[in-house]
Amino acid sequence: MAEKIIPDIVVSRLPLYLQALEYLQKSGKTITSSKELGAHSDISAAQVRKDLSFFGEFGKQGSGYDIAYLYSEISRILNVDHVWDVALIGSGYLGHAIAHYPGFVEHGFRIKYVFDNNPAKIGQELGGHIILSSEKMVELIKKDGIKIAMLTVPSRVVQEVADQLVQAGVKAILNYAPVPLIVPEGIRVETVRPILQLEHMTYYL
Amino acid sequence: MAEKIIPDIVVSRLPLYLQALEYLQKSGKTITSSKELGAHSDISAAQVRKDLSFFGEFGKQGSGYDIAYLYSEISRILNVDHVWDVALIGSGYLGHAIAHYPGFVEHGFRIKYVFDNNPAKIGQELGGHIILSSEKMVELIKKDGIKIAMLTVPSRVVQEVADQLVQAGVKAILNYAPVPLIVPEGIRVETVRPILQLEHMTYYL
Repeated sequence: MAEKIIPDIVVSRLPLYLQALEYLQKSGKTITSSKELGAHSDISAAQVRKDLSFFGEFGKQGSGYDIAYLYSEISRILNVDHVWDVALIGSGYLGHAIAHYPGFVEHGFRIKYVFDNNPAKIGQELGGHIILSSEKMVELIKKDGIKIAMLTVPSRVVQEVADQLVQAGVKAILNYAPVPLIVPEGIRVETVRPILQLEHMTYYL
Repeated sequence: MAEKIIPDIVVSRLPLYLQALEYLQKSGKTITSSKELGAHSDISAAQVRKDLSFFGEFGKQGSGYDIAYLYSEISRILNVDHVWDVALIGSGYLGHAIAHYPGFVEHGFRIKYVFDNNPAKIGQELGGHIILSSEKMVELIKKDGIKIAMLTVPSRVVQEVADQLVQAGVKAILNYAPVPLIVPEGIRVETVRPILQLEHMTYYL
């Protein structure tokens, strides 16, 4: 049987639903609707229903969705029902913010290593980690089979570091540098783009 | 004459083109094509042409786009052809990273004030700014007519701070807290969501 291919745009909305479900659960709710889920994700109720229908039947007409169940199902679909080890490359201001932000580990992304190429930083402590030399990066990532990396290195070196990460077996890169990365087929890159988000808003000002 | 309404999805792609144009310009190019622009924005050439056609004629069939001209035109369309003063609320690790990141001012977003409600931080220096008490936030934002704010405050207070910002006249909020903000009609919010970007990628792992 051929596997059903889910459009990436649908996949991209699942984390929004997961976040909305988490929020509703924290608000003390146990049941939600596509309308409510949509309102908290900025997506129409019809789109919510359509997106979820790609993956099966999660609720009954008229009785809504069980929040805990839907949360666990979407977590499973997104492969975030377990903890991922992550490598953080770059220990500047942004690396500090990431290493100290509890949200990553709370959502299953545990920083395993912090690497930097600055001799003044290597050996220092950051968020419970000893900053390691970038020279050990490929070896340690390979050894532990780490698949996810967060990159907070300067733009001028980000492609070079990404190439090394791919060589080490990393399959998913969260890139904080405002530079388009070129990676082989099968490697995922997401770029954090606050400036582009600002520019999107200024259009309306 | 009725004003042409541009779909928001089209607007949302313009900053990507701007970033790609900047990259191409830095690479020493002066002319580009919809194909090249698309390749650097992860968007199809046909989509690039269609998006740009909403705003006029920027290139001639067969001769491509003049990079400097297209850059200045898109900057003008996005209202980023001048400098915006921005208020930064929250001076924790993420606030530090933002205040020290040169990319914001290089792209026309100049931090004018940094506010915090922590007495231990008020009066300290951050990225060339003296951290001011949140109690002065509404007054100073009103006085200077600041329209844009970046929020790096804890989730539990982010809605309250957003309400104050809106009251002060802020029209665009870049929210770093993983919480959906409720704002009046006409106020723009963009949320920086690195965890959701990670979760999007883990689907494919």
